[in-house]
Amino acid sequence: MPVTLIYADHAWLGGDGMARGVVIEVRGEWITAVRQGVPAPPPGAVHLRGITVPGLANAHSHAFHRALRGRTQRERGTFWTWREQMYGVAARLTPDTYHALARAAYAEMALAGVACVGEFHYVHHDTGGRPYSSPNAMGEALLAAAAEAGIRITLLDTCYLRGGFGMPLEGPQLRFGDRDAAAWADRASALKGGGHARIGAAVHSVRAVPSEEIGTVSGWARERGAPLHFHLSEQVAENEACLSAYGRTPAELLAEHGALGSLSSAVHATHLRPEDVALLGGSRTAVCMCPTTERDLADGIGPARSLADAGSPLSLGSDSNAVVDLFEEARGVELDERLASRHRGHWLAADLLRAATSDGHASLGWPEAGRIEAGAPADLVTVTLDSVRMAGSPLGALVESVVFAATAADVREVFVGGRHVVTGGRHQLIEDVPAALTAAILELT
Amino acid sequence: MPVTLIYADHAWLGGDGMARGVVIEVRGEWITAVRQGVPAPPPGAVHLRGITVPGLANAHSHAFHRALRGRTQRERGTFWTWREQMYGVAARLTPDTYHALARAAYAEMALAGVACVGEFHYVHHDTGGRPYSSPNAMGEALLAAAAEAGIRITLLDTCYLRGGFGMPLEGPQLRFGDRDAAAWADRASALKGGGHARIGAAVHSVRAVPSEEIGTVSGWARERGAPLHFHLSEQVAENEACLSAYGRTPAELLAEHGALGSLSSAVHATHLRPEDVALLGGSRTAVCMCPTTERDLADGIGPARSLADAGSPLSLGSDSNAVVDLFEEARGVELDERLASRHRGHWLAADLLRAATSDGHASLGWPEAGRIEAGAPADLVTVTLDSVRMAGSPLGALVESVVFAATAADVREVFVGGRHVVTGGRHQLIEDVPAALTAAILELT
Repeated sequence: MPVTLIYADHAWLGGDGMARGVVIEVRGEWITAVRQGVPAPPPGAVHLRGITVPGLANAHSHAFHRALRGRTQRERGTFWTWREQMYGVAARLTPDTYHALARAAYAEMALAGVACVGEFHYVHHDTGGRPYSSPNAMGEALLAAAAEAGIRITLLDTCYLRGGFGMPLEGPQLRFGDRDAAAWADRASALKGGGHARIGAAVHSVRAVPSEEIGTVSGWARERGAPLHFHLSEQVAENEACLSAYGRTPAELLAEHGALGSLSSAVHATHLRPEDVALLGGSRTAVCMCPTTERDLADGIGPARSLADAGSPLSLGSDSNAVVDLFEEARGVELDERLASRHRGHWLAADLLRAATSDGHASLGWPEAGRIEAGAPADLVTVTLDSVRMAGSPLGALVESVVFAATAADVREVFVGGRHVVTGGRHQLIEDVPAALTAAILELT
Repeated sequence: MPVTLIYADHAWLGGDGMARGVVIEVRGEWITAVRQGVPAPPPGAVHLRGITVPGLANAHSHAFHRALRGRTQRERGTFWTWREQMYGVAARLTPDTYHALARAAYAEMALAGVACVGEFHYVHHDTGGRPYSSPNAMGEALLAAAAEAGIRITLLDTCYLRGGFGMPLEGPQLRFGDRDAAAWADRASALKGGGHARIGAAVHSVRAVPSEEIGTVSGWARERGAPLHFHLSEQVAENEACLSAYGRTPAELLAEHGALGSLSSAVHATHLRPEDVALLGGSRTAVCMCPTTERDLADGIGPARSLADAGSPLSLGSDSNAVVDLFEEARGVELDERLASRHRGHWLAADLLRAATSDGHASLGWPEAGRIEAGAPADLVTVTLDSVRMAGSPLGALVESVVFAATAADVREVFVGGRHVVTGGRHQLIEDVPAALTAAILELT
């Protein structure tokens, strides 16, 4: 197998600092060796100028929300009024239009350095809940979209059975629902991963899956060693309704039904009691924060630091895709905690970068990825130092600079599984990503 | 005088929506006519594709803080420990090195669409407080820097007399101090504005200017009809020390000494009592919020909405220049208020754009600017619709899209006073802005 040599001026190898002069040897899809302190590029090496980090993991996405960007900022209201607008787009999706939109949205992610997306997917069926002739037509459209955009995907096929505690699905929600968790499991079991794709499970929330059905989903994931995700306590109203329905917090209810553990990820985890933090941390359940969405939807600021201290690894998600910039998500965790605490320095920049890379990949069931080391897939992202944003970054604080000053617009090169997907800031598989986004969104709105 | 015709596909003329097919007639530095609803560009017109808004006003900047970007994210601590690092750079500035840094920092601002900067300038004297042979050497370096970067400036010459309540200046602070407010006024009176520059005043804070000296600065500004700015209640500790020293809140103290009013701007205004909000609003004192800095420095979330309801116009500042992106500042006001309130929709996008343009310019003493209308200076900023961030922006929500989705990286064209300063995203006066930033910062760190 031919060897490609890549030379990175600066590369983050997982420590607190940045390594200089790093030679990365790639065979096929894999990194086979890494050497640092090499003074100049070896002959024939691909030279990555700037800062190279592992491929980013976007651990929580709803691809179709990309069509809402800008559109939902006109009205006053809450998470719940925003949800009505989101349902409007969900109602119009077809396998074809969703494929086009997700392909473009994933290409936007690739341009932002995302090598792997966790798609929390619940728009399963046709209008009114009628199954498509191919029952996974929608999920398969998303798997194909990621392949065409050149990124990895974990399709988190989501169980969504109720419109709220004790309430049936209604209107657009009918598309989300399987008959019960057993029917969900049958359908989800038919999904096939592949080189670029793995299949995981999700419990949409304790609102949407009754307690007696949660165990079926947890069990399905556990049997397969697959990741299991769930929205958790994003809104105070959800906590109150859960307490009133079950006498338990959402975290307690999920724990009781086997949904916590080191292959599980709680998304948002905004409004928690100390006992919830202890349950999540003690079970090593990962926590996925989505700061730009949590700002947008007025969710509040979750206790990311306390959760990490209790034992929960952090991952990051673009969620609603109103913003697609994992650097902004990473610094958002620290910056919003500063607003809440009036103190700086809750997270080391390296810890935030770990959340955006290795810990995010682990949350998506790719524990071998998100690392620049022998044996890892060759997923690399280079951020330029030649933009106005990154210019003047101090050599002694390059990890801090990339986390606190870089934006998606500063990403120049992206390799996914050894394939050079983004070159000089241009996507190599989809010629005009903005045009693809515009066309796909126009079709749906 | 020759006429230039500019045709904007979409332009924001100050209302809640976006106008289409806008012809802007420019003679010299001025807009002389505006027509909308023109179906195609007139022959010979400069065609601005995308969304054109008035030049942005960055109402609060400390240019030299640009050298701290990334560097201050390594340590735990507070505003007060951050300040020690900031003093380290302040101690090394000379008129030459500060000129080079400010020129590059202002060029970064121009690329981000800033047509006018309010420089809150307090590094007046040489080491130990020795006056330069030309007493305004530092301020003049900043005026020249803005001219070379192609933007307007209001130099807010800042009175800074004490190291804290009842404490003398010490160490690096000695460079900030004049003997007393009368000496400050003598020096400030020698500053000359010009076509691109106006001179204003600032009271650094109630920490740094004793109560009996505030009136001299207020009076100086009032006599000249010049803007007067001051940092206000950014930290709880400042409020407590002020109450203990004077038995009054900072806002009350400033009101007593004639510092409030419609030509005045309170910067930050984070920790206010309801009485303070009433004082600021009732006097029509403007309020300048700097959300990215207020996140960074763990200041907290100021009551921007309550202040506006009470009568205070909003303006926006990049302050520490850790981020130079007025769109991020604009949406930051709304998004952080969402985090604090758990509710969406405190500000219309058009109101935030007004803060970034006309209200920001008014706060800097350019009430005629920041508007696309006959009689205004020809300051225009075009944001592309062809980036991944802006692609798919709905025609019915372009104001919302530019405020909530655009970044500094999406700015393509900037005119300041009729001069085309940025073309196709490239600065026309300074060839390599990132290189200029890097060189200037290396010199200082």
